[in-house]
Amino acid sequence: MIEGVSPLVDDGRFPAKRLVGDIVQIEADIFADGHDLLAAVMLHRHESESEMTETPMVPLVNDRWRAEMTVDRLGFYFFSFEGWIDHFATWHRDLRKRVDAGVTGNDLDVQLRIGLGMLRAAAARSTDRNRKRLDEYIKGLEGSDAPEEKVLDLWSGELVELMRRNAERKFATRDATEHAIEVDPPRAGFSTWYELFPRSTASEAGRHGTFRDVEAQLPRVARMGFDVLYLPPIHPIGTTFRKGPNNTASTEASDPGSPWAIGAKDGGHKAIHPDLGTLEDFRRLVEAARSRGIELAMDVAFQASPDHPYVTEHDEWFQKRPDGTIQYAENPPKKYQDIYPFHFETDAWTDLWKELCGIFRFWIDNGVRVFRVDNPHTKPLPFWHWVIRTVKKHHPDVIFLAEAFTRPKIMYWLAKAGFSQSYTYFAWRNTKYELTEYFERITKPPVSDFFRPNAWPNTPDILPEYLQYGGRPAFVIRLMLAATLSSNYGIYGPAFERFISDARDPGGEEYRDSEKYEIKRWSPADDDLTELIAVVNRIRRQNPALQQNTTLAFHETTNDEILCYSKSAGDESVLMIVNVDPHNTQAGYVELDLTALNLDANRPFQVHELLSGARYTWHGPRNYVKLDPNVVPAHIFRIRRKVRSEQDFEYFL
Amino acid sequence: MIEGVSPLVDDGRFPAKRLVGDIVQIEADIFADGHDLLAAVMLHRHESESEMTETPMVPLVNDRWRAEMTVDRLGFYFFSFEGWIDHFATWHRDLRKRVDAGVTGNDLDVQLRIGLGMLRAAAARSTDRNRKRLDEYIKGLEGSDAPEEKVLDLWSGELVELMRRNAERKFATRDATEHAIEVDPPRAGFSTWYELFPRSTASEAGRHGTFRDVEAQLPRVARMGFDVLYLPPIHPIGTTFRKGPNNTASTEASDPGSPWAIGAKDGGHKAIHPDLGTLEDFRRLVEAARSRGIELAMDVAFQASPDHPYVTEHDEWFQKRPDGTIQYAENPPKKYQDIYPFHFETDAWTDLWKELCGIFRFWIDNGVRVFRVDNPHTKPLPFWHWVIRTVKKHHPDVIFLAEAFTRPKIMYWLAKAGFSQSYTYFAWRNTKYELTEYFERITKPPVSDFFRPNAWPNTPDILPEYLQYGGRPAFVIRLMLAATLSSNYGIYGPAFERFISDARDPGGEEYRDSEKYEIKRWSPADDDLTELIAVVNRIRRQNPALQQNTTLAFHETTNDEILCYSKSAGDESVLMIVNVDPHNTQAGYVELDLTALNLDANRPFQVHELLSGARYTWHGPRNYVKLDPNVVPAHIFRIRRKVRSEQDFEYFL
Repeated sequence: MIEGVSPLVDDGRFPAKRLVGDIVQIEADIFADGHDLLAAVMLHRHESESEMTETPMVPLVNDRWRAEMTVDRLGFYFFSFEGWIDHFATWHRDLRKRVDAGVTGNDLDVQLRIGLGMLRAAAARSTDRNRKRLDEYIKGLEGSDAPEEKVLDLWSGELVELMRRNAERKFATRDATEHAIEVDPPRAGFSTWYELFPRSTASEAGRHGTFRDVEAQLPRVARMGFDVLYLPPIHPIGTTFRKGPNNTASTEASDPGSPWAIGAKDGGHKAIHPDLGTLEDFRRLVEAARSRGIELAMDVAFQASPDHPYVTEHDEWFQKRPDGTIQYAENPPKKYQDIYPFHFETDAWTDLWKELCGIFRFWIDNGVRVFRVDNPHTKPLPFWHWVIRTVKKHHPDVIFLAEAFTRPKIMYWLAKAGFSQSYTYFAWRNTKYELTEYFERITKPPVSDFFRPNAWPNTPDILPEYLQYGGRPAFVIRLMLAATLSSNYGIYGPAFERFISDARDPGGEEYRDSEKYEIKRWSPADDDLTELIAVVNRIRRQNPALQQNTTLAFHETTNDEILCYSKSAGDESVLMIVNVDPHNTQAGYVELDLTALNLDANRPFQVHELLSGARYTWHGPRNYVKLDPNVVPAHIFRIRRKVRSEQDFEYFL
Repeated sequence: MIEGVSPLVDDGRFPAKRLVGDIVQIEADIFADGHDLLAAVMLHRHESESEMTETPMVPLVNDRWRAEMTVDRLGFYFFSFEGWIDHFATWHRDLRKRVDAGVTGNDLDVQLRIGLGMLRAAAARSTDRNRKRLDEYIKGLEGSDAPEEKVLDLWSGELVELMRRNAERKFATRDATEHAIEVDPPRAGFSTWYELFPRSTASEAGRHGTFRDVEAQLPRVARMGFDVLYLPPIHPIGTTFRKGPNNTASTEASDPGSPWAIGAKDGGHKAIHPDLGTLEDFRRLVEAARSRGIELAMDVAFQASPDHPYVTEHDEWFQKRPDGTIQYAENPPKKYQDIYPFHFETDAWTDLWKELCGIFRFWIDNGVRVFRVDNPHTKPLPFWHWVIRTVKKHHPDVIFLAEAFTRPKIMYWLAKAGFSQSYTYFAWRNTKYELTEYFERITKPPVSDFFRPNAWPNTPDILPEYLQYGGRPAFVIRLMLAATLSSNYGIYGPAFERFISDARDPGGEEYRDSEKYEIKRWSPADDDLTELIAVVNRIRRQNPALQQNTTLAFHETTNDEILCYSKSAGDESVLMIVNVDPHNTQAGYVELDLTALNLDANRPFQVHELLSGARYTWHGPRNYVKLDPNVVPAHIFRIRRKVRSEQDFEYFL
């Protein structure tokens, strides 16, 4: 029997996800009736290969078996299993028991004749080289020595290995399924996002920013340590029912409108807003960013302004009302008349799907490799499964981020269906309990096998209350949490680094005078977060522990405002201690889970505070901490397992 | 999307199990993109029906939906789901929002025209009777009233129901799978087993007991409250290498041998040991037992003595050694030369399988409906899957108990493959921690959906240390634990009720002078457990809470020797408090989980001690208990939720 396979997502309906270079631990429950020994192999191939490669599996405990596979290419890997009752290994084990119990003479001779039969059968199955060696053993058993002499030849590792390689697999069980693993580029698992509105990047006041202006921002963005630069939609913006400042109806001709009201006479989803520049300028920006290690992320929002060319060229893609007008977006009684959703139940749905897929292809052809998809949960879920699979078939290096702030099962489904990364509920998880519960859940299997969180403390749509009322410390706390809890994180940068905290409405999360409806000019501030951001992102780059989530472990503390957690990679761990109260100094003890940190309770260990550079020697699980949010609300410690003692010197050995 | 189906065993590879008369809660995650309302139905049928019946599903929280199905016939039920976006219900909800927000005039008229289109389409799909009613609503909307008047007609439950029944299901999602539930007879889930050796039932010393003697035992067994009488193998016993007392080599011609060494010149698995009686006597015993509400359980041990007719008639079913002899059972260096295992890798395996299946059929034809299968884990697992399915296809009322004392995954697999009940590790779970951990695991889904425990404090093979050293109190404690933790339990009665506790070897679990190798004469004892057994079994029959396991809940206690747990059914709960220390009086507080017991923390409740008949009024979760193992080591309380107060009298209402 072969069952309980891992990794496996929804019993194999979706692939498990990994990154290029990962070593994947593949496990299954493998067992049979009786007490005989089993043998098992894991079979695996990359999608480009037709033949499976075999890797022997190792039994763990409780009928669990494991093998490892390094996935070093993009795309799909497939794995399966084969297991069988190993009659030779069983006989060999029992022969040892018999000899140890003093079996000799005829009883031993019968056993050797049973073994001889198995050796002969293996020799007949084997290749020339193995056969030659097996024949030696066979000759020994066929000879005239006493059985007590013959048996000595059989205690040979070479024989066991030869028999393993030429095992009788007539009754082997083959797992009927090829289980899939999808391998993404490393950036799908470790990425640092910066969002800005290109139109707000002009150096002079009053001018519409351009792609050239964005290029001028690249050195600053790179210096802060970001590797994805995400731009809201760059397409022509509709004028019908255009929104003015603070989402009111526009009254001024100079109002630029919301970039998400896509489409005008200048074109739709494949066109560029004329004030931003040309397609040539865009390609130049993509390349300039890439030369600094930054990928440009394009916003894909599948909706149209009433002025989108589709509305006249393909009115069959929109829903008509009984009065002949096109159905605009609504959340009754609220109307969003500047937005027409696509009507996915149209009879012309195949043309619509193809066209939308073509939008991805168009921008891929123009250099884009990262897409941030707006509200995917309001379009049919099977569409995403199809379009992502279709795109990735030819471009397995493309990354899709789902902006689905919706119910958990829909978020999960989108991730299973192919989205590489997902926005999370992080913006609304502030307390120790909330953060612990949420990140415990999303960083462990089964969720972590398909869902890659991307944590954002703010977005142009979300200015959380915590940031509105917590002052500067709140921004520092949220930055450090996002950057260390989640290997993927991002900020809506210009507003975040300047501590912008004014909301439009009390109790709401919209920015006052939101950049979504206005062109901003972001002058340098007296105090901003750019230096700390640069430090935190450098720490992320230098510590592989922070570049993944599955080793995340929370540690007890005696103060409910102090959160303590660690991540580990290889021999190093990073330990975070964060005061989540932005208003007050908090102190208490942390109780480290030394097992999670792989630390010896009886030996001191060195902790290196990476923000200040200070080093301390700790001993045992219990350590006192005190954090003033106005100075620095968090520690980031690198833990070195071993502190030198006299026992490390050679003379002691 | 339809996923997360429950109940479901191994993603549907095996059926979930239920009993005749059960109400099955069937759930699934059902969701779609967007914010529209959904509708869903559960489709179901018995295997004898070809058409599915639809039951509307009810949304719970977090995209979880539920429907119920009563399974009132033996065999397989199949269920599936269909879900769709309910455009009418969504429109109706939004219309209410619009009207509440003051939408009138043309804006309202457009909405009514949208609704009118849906009503017309539904009328076209509907049956005559529904159509007539729908036409009334359509006429109203087509009339010349102001929209503000027309809308009033639409706030009608009848309309919503008419539209639900005639919903547009063009884009419905149908779950591609028919999930299976296997329905067994009630005794598969609630049974009380008594094991005795028929040959030891003679009334006079020195005589071999017969089926007639067993008949004479029936009144006693029935009085104690047992409903399954399990007999070790009743077939002719081999003489070659026959075992004598205490598993030594037999030296006396009068040694009766082990009943599990099946087969002699008088026949094999379809024959009856001549000293027990005839097939006619056997059938008479089966009927006599049934007339007292007792089913006879037959032991099926698929192995042969060297004297079994198979050995000569079908030597191809046994493995040969190089010296031409047949391979006997071994656990090297131990030899069991009185037993030949079948060689399931034989080329003649199809004949072997058919013959073994025929053994079940033979005894079914002779009245047997319960089989206790000896060591199924040492025969190929797929054989059991096949043979149980084959037998139950024609006899879905048959019950199979797996005696697989082996590793957990094999025990589970046998249960999934079809065994109705399974022996457990209960015999070796004695402490509060061990019992809690084990029963928490096996009484909750997913395990409880396929694995039905049958708890035995002893068997002829297992005299646990706890019984060897715990004296009379140990027997009382283990009886009460088995009878209340597991709805199926049994005892190897003659030894258990007489407190037999002498082991053959120190550290071993074999009975000294075991009945497996000798004929015993069980004279009445001065002190025995029969009275208490009768009381405990009567409590089980009178309290439906004890006839199932899924509501089992453990409660905190302040003493690690005091175990407290409850089971509930309908309005009643049974609460057990057990001192698991057979040597000392133990006292402490129990902290009841009032939620699990569905009790109001602010109202007193009555507890009725069912062993003593005493009644107490308790209040709140914390109650003091003290248990002397030499008096009675356990309480069995029935909890009545409600204690009368002045508020219960009519004048108070």
